[in-house]
Amino acid sequence: MPSEYRDASVISVPGRMSAPVSPATPPAVRVPFGASMRVLRCSVMPVILMKFVTMSMKLSRGVRMGQDTARQRLIEAGEELYAEAGVGRVRLRELNALAGVRNDSAVHYHFGSQDGLLEAILQTHLQEIGARVDKTTAALCTGRDGSPEALRDAIAALAIPFAEKLRDERGRRFIRIVAQVWGRIGDWQQQRFIPSSALAMDLIRRSARGGLPGAVLEERMWLITRFVVASFAARAERQDAVVDGIALDAFVYDVVGMATAAYFAEPPEGGFWPARWPAIREG
Amino acid sequence: MPSEYRDASVISVPGRMSAPVSPATPPAVRVPFGASMRVLRCSVMPVILMKFVTMSMKLSRGVRMGQDTARQRLIEAGEELYAEAGVGRVRLRELNALAGVRNDSAVHYHFGSQDGLLEAILQTHLQEIGARVDKTTAALCTGRDGSPEALRDAIAALAIPFAEKLRDERGRRFIRIVAQVWGRIGDWQQQRFIPSSALAMDLIRRSARGGLPGAVLEERMWLITRFVVASFAARAERQDAVVDGIALDAFVYDVVGMATAAYFAEPPEGGFWPARWPAIREG
Repeated sequence: MPSEYRDASVISVPGRMSAPVSPATPPAVRVPFGASMRVLRCSVMPVILMKFVTMSMKLSRGVRMGQDTARQRLIEAGEELYAEAGVGRVRLRELNALAGVRNDSAVHYHFGSQDGLLEAILQTHLQEIGARVDKTTAALCTGRDGSPEALRDAIAALAIPFAEKLRDERGRRFIRIVAQVWGRIGDWQQQRFIPSSALAMDLIRRSARGGLPGAVLEERMWLITRFVVASFAARAERQDAVVDGIALDAFVYDVVGMATAAYFAEPPEGGFWPARWPAIREG
Repeated sequence: MPSEYRDASVISVPGRMSAPVSPATPPAVRVPFGASMRVLRCSVMPVILMKFVTMSMKLSRGVRMGQDTARQRLIEAGEELYAEAGVGRVRLRELNALAGVRNDSAVHYHFGSQDGLLEAILQTHLQEIGARVDKTTAALCTGRDGSPEALRDAIAALAIPFAEKLRDERGRRFIRIVAQVWGRIGDWQQQRFIPSSALAMDLIRRSARGGLPGAVLEERMWLITRFVVASFAARAERQDAVVDGIALDAFVYDVVGMATAAYFAEPPEGGFWPARWPAIREG
């Protein structure tokens, strides 16, 4: 997904310098010096002053941010665009514009490609999550197994460090990105960034409903893990709206509870298909 | 998402008339009249004859397919490209190429935009699913409620018509598309195309674990429905690989079983958060 393309209609990249549609002419003298360009552009302020303001803003931004933070600014721009427009739908020039990077090859220089940028975004957050999972598994996954309670604690040990990301905007963007690419990184992230998750996954295997056929257990682990990540992403997407009046901890508890219950569902065994259900067979 | 763009590296559109790389010169006289252009293009057949063959093939294709099927060919090309490259990542010219449509404005003419094409794809399948849901709800959702069994049957009444799509390639593509846009069409499809689903949803509401707070129940319906659709899409994506040795009916039964169990999970009520779990609060 090293795409240069993005559907311009899906999101509107904040055009920081774009002229407003409205022909409003607010009193220029009352606009403070640090006011946004949006206001300045529709003011009656002379063009020569506008140019000076633009130039001085660019200069002060250059000093404030520094060239050495271009990498960090690209990471944060990538988080915003990949979360909102979608991975594979973002153009290089939009990344550069949002990051305030003037060098067109900055992504290539710092990350090799947009794939490299995506991996850097994932790494940034997954390493932090990995450190948290070390602690939660140590606290919740030791010395017990084989019970619904142990299963729920093991799921919580993996889920809570991801859920903690839902508390701030950058974390919510990460969750929305990780949900998009989960199929590609599922194993990858666990092995590379969260070694301790193997402990929790093993505890889940040993604590799920007894007698589940191996293939059914592995399928459930795959689908239920996706369910947890997708549910967190669904909440991250609705963060700006009212989140249905459910507090974050109640939401996380409920998702962990649903995941736990799913592991104990009755498995498909001999004569499992109810006679009243319409038959369904592979084509 | 009326995108004109798609990452050309994600999939390669079959170039139906492209010349072969090999300079092979098969004996032209043995090439049957109806042989593919691929063979004819590298033969020693005189250019004048090639032009005649090309023209007659175009004519016969025009008669066989007819201009009135361009719409259908665009629908099937959209199914393939949206499923594999992703909605919002497909360019008009790739749709036209795959559909064998020579008029660049065909999508505009038949559907208004790529959004219109997407809606036509969804309509095609959802209307068929709606007719099936009428039957499954009539068979599975009448005269009973308030039990785990009734809940499972109601979920099956909604899930099985979608699962039936997993039996053929076009259906699997539809499922992969519908999973991508579910957040946008969730309510839309039920109200417009599957009126009978309201019956099943109402039965689910009345049969879920008693005493669930209203907001928690609605949140579960939203997340669990997504889980079922996403699980079907996960299987559709892996159809070409071995699907872990689980037959389609066993898979569907297991997903319905997990969804049913999730509705009966212990809800978050007073003092629900286990003391040993790290606290997590809204940022």
